[in-house]
Amino acid sequence: MKWVRRHILDTNDWSRDEIETVLDQTRAMVEILQRPIRRAPPLRGRTVILFFAEASTRTRVSFELAAKALSADVTNITTTGSSVEKGESLYDTVRTLRALGGDVVVMRHGSSGAPYFVAERTDAAVINAGDGWHAHPTQGLLDAYTLRDALGGIDGRRVVIVGDILHSRVARSDISTLIPLGVRVTLSGPPTLIPTAWRCGQLPAGVTYEPDLDRALDGADGVIALRLQRERQEAGLLPSLREYTQVWGLSEARVSRMRPGAPVMHPGPMNEGIEIDASVAHSSRSLIETQVTNGVAVRMALLYLLAATAPLEDRA
Amino acid sequence: MKWVRRHILDTNDWSRDEIETVLDQTRAMVEILQRPIRRAPPLRGRTVILFFAEASTRTRVSFELAAKALSADVTNITTTGSSVEKGESLYDTVRTLRALGGDVVVMRHGSSGAPYFVAERTDAAVINAGDGWHAHPTQGLLDAYTLRDALGGIDGRRVVIVGDILHSRVARSDISTLIPLGVRVTLSGPPTLIPTAWRCGQLPAGVTYEPDLDRALDGADGVIALRLQRERQEAGLLPSLREYTQVWGLSEARVSRMRPGAPVMHPGPMNEGIEIDASVAHSSRSLIETQVTNGVAVRMALLYLLAATAPLEDRA
Amino acid sequence: MKWVRRHILDTNDWSRDEIETVLDQTRAMVEILQRPIRRAPPLRGRTVILFFAEASTRTRVSFELAAKALSADVTNITTTGSSVEKGESLYDTVRTLRALGGDVVVMRHGSSGAPYFVAERTDAAVINAGDGWHAHPTQGLLDAYTLRDALGGIDGRRVVIVGDILHSRVARSDISTLIPLGVRVTLSGPPTLIPTAWRCGQLPAGVTYEPDLDRALDGADGVIALRLQRERQEAGLLPSLREYTQVWGLSEARVSRMRPGAPVMHPGPMNEGIEIDASVAHSSRSLIETQVTNGVAVRMALLYLLAATAPLEDRA
Repeated sequence: MKWVRRHILDTNDWSRDEIETVLDQTRAMVEILQRPIRRAPPLRGRTVILFFAEASTRTRVSFELAAKALSADVTNITTTGSSVEKGESLYDTVRTLRALGGDVVVMRHGSSGAPYFVAERTDAAVINAGDGWHAHPTQGLLDAYTLRDALGGIDGRRVVIVGDILHSRVARSDISTLIPLGVRVTLSGPPTLIPTAWRCGQLPAGVTYEPDLDRALDGADGVIALRLQRERQEAGLLPSLREYTQVWGLSEARVSRMRPGAPVMHPGPMNEGIEIDASVAHSSRSLIETQVTNGVAVRMALLYLLAATAPLEDRA
Repeated sequence: MKWVRRHILDTNDWSRDEIETVLDQTRAMVEILQRPIRRAPPLRGRTVILFFAEASTRTRVSFELAAKALSADVTNITTTGSSVEKGESLYDTVRTLRALGGDVVVMRHGSSGAPYFVAERTDAAVINAGDGWHAHPTQGLLDAYTLRDALGGIDGRRVVIVGDILHSRVARSDISTLIPLGVRVTLSGPPTLIPTAWRCGQLPAGVTYEPDLDRALDGADGVIALRLQRERQEAGLLPSLREYTQVWGLSEARVSRMRPGAPVMHPGPMNEGIEIDASVAHSSRSLIETQVTNGVAVRMALLYLLAATAPLEDRA
Repeated sequence: MKWVRRHILDTNDWSRDEIETVLDQTRAMVEILQRPIRRAPPLRGRTVILFFAEASTRTRVSFELAAKALSADVTNITTTGSSVEKGESLYDTVRTLRALGGDVVVMRHGSSGAPYFVAERTDAAVINAGDGWHAHPTQGLLDAYTLRDALGGIDGRRVVIVGDILHSRVARSDISTLIPLGVRVTLSGPPTLIPTAWRCGQLPAGVTYEPDLDRALDGADGVIALRLQRERQEAGLLPSLREYTQVWGLSEARVSRMRPGAPVMHPGPMNEGIEIDASVAHSSRSLIETQVTNGVAVRMALLYLLAATAPLEDRA
């Protein structure tokens, strides 16, 4: 299909075709990343601005390397030292970034919806790199790509997402990316960390909630463990980290309840020993590093679809 | 004319010819920035070091994108994490930057005169990106370019600069750039925020002070509003922000006292609702984003004049 | 000789041949840095990740410019804003950097041995840019190159290292690089700042300790002054900075005890007036800026030996 979207804000209104177009384009990027010289020319002369109002190593660096692999110019703006701290409105900051020549603004922000606000008011392409608890679409796409690639197709598979679903933009984006591809999703985790409506049975089509992680994992085709923010305990949402680990941590015994070889994923950074055992994180089932590698490729695919000035295979 | 200056420290001793050379060179850069692939080769192999000892998003990013558009290598040094904090002298820091291979050092510093000190002691080209209350020459040049371009020539025009003139390096650099081009400048703002000598009538040739902003704007060809630092109120220099806005804020009614279509400018970041109404900032009169775009072009022009290794139009 | 090491962790187990291979390669890089266009293609398509968990301007920028001069892509990760602060293990951070596509990880870390830990667990090339008090191998190599070049050969020469030997990774790396090249090293400095075993005579072959700096300098071929951390005084290891300067500071009178023209070096940043007089630091004997320039060349040489995808002299 021909790509028509100007922004990547959330996958929750994407068609299956759109998701598959990105995943297919990602495959071409994975091949570029496997070459001795990982560089292609299609974004030459384009400027990608990484505007991160929340700290993030892996996502920022992933976008930076993706943009450079496609020959874009990249500049970093973090909140520290930016006009944001001088009281400038987000609107004005982004108009400025566009006026400076930014063709693509990759944006992480603590407020849900901030990238929408910006996208409506600039003609730069906006990619949401995570906004509040709302969405993290490139994570959803890289998880879908990683699962599809590892399982050799994902239509009809069942994947468990375990942890703090309530505060997780990763969970929301995983669901909205996997469901249109025909995946069934089982959520697991403490009831206090599941959205009320979902806990009470009003779940999206294809999604179920099973508080007992052992049962959720029985026969599953894969599991995604979410990072547990330690501040949830301070907020009284968890009895103790130790109990969390006993009941919802991914141990070797637990993951062996899945189908043989079913993969284990995590968006990182991990709290090893809390939501995932080190032995699981570093086992042959673990796709955690593959996710990181695929993350660069997914971001290349999106940058290419939004902003290419030349075909992928032109000579640099 | 042939360019002979090695550093860009302040425009206050520049000839009209020099200013016009930069503005003409800027026009060529604006054309490059309008191409689909905004990149030219003349600084290939040159290293531009951005040494910012004060926070600044727009100026730092503007220089970074300007240098990259001309194919220079760019590296950022901010105070946080730099040897400056280990007690190294500014002199030694800059000698080190030069020894590292910096051909151009772009420098923002809280102390007036710091770039002069550096320029006298290194053979790298030094560009002042703002030093204390002293000067911000690239802002003056981009404002002059923007006005000249918008008005179709600026000789004989009259421009108002309103706000905290006393603490503004922008005002000083605007004046020293506009006056040689034949512009008359009317300053306006609270008497407590005007240098004493200027308030008492000892003004540079071509400059007048009119505390009544309405009168200052009557028939003017353009207005530049300065950012009001909120700390001026704490220092007792202002009765209240609300009163400031009533008396010296740019409202729609006020800007309509200027000639039809006369432009409104602001160096950014704006305090909307204080020194400028949002409706004015985002009106068709507003050149605020054009200033940002032209800022990249002016900085490209200066980098080119100081450090080109190849003609502008060589093939990359 | 053919280069076989995959990592640069410490020079303390390097052969003379290995050290000389790097120094010879450095000479080729110095020549590239003297060209009008300081850029060569051999690392095109390689990604160099600068992972600095301790602040450092000169070393970080030196690596950045070295990598860019060889056409690598470079990305910076500093502790602030990185996952390290989210409690991720160093192991996971570096696995992530590798999965992101990092071919070379240049790493500065406060803990001695951290780069070893990482190198054993990733197939990226790891370069130690300083780990705790342990080693700073690129500093040792650049000091050896600078001395060899300035003296026209260093076999049989005698060099003084003065200052806080105890806490200095620079001293350790200088010793382990210079001794295999046939240099004799005289250490000087307060007994409280010399490792106990060394102070008691159990010194490595070729190394002596002479607390009297005047005697140490008599007839020496060169001197390296170390940076004095002011916190040593607070820790009770020094009577006063003033006394330190009187007894172990490099004054003009003192350096003139060396052979005529014998060079003065310092790894920077300097405390002028404490461990070195400003007049010595900026005298014709001083190679302090030459060290900085050679530092870029040494790092280019190492990056080239570890990660080149093309010969040095291919056309870009």
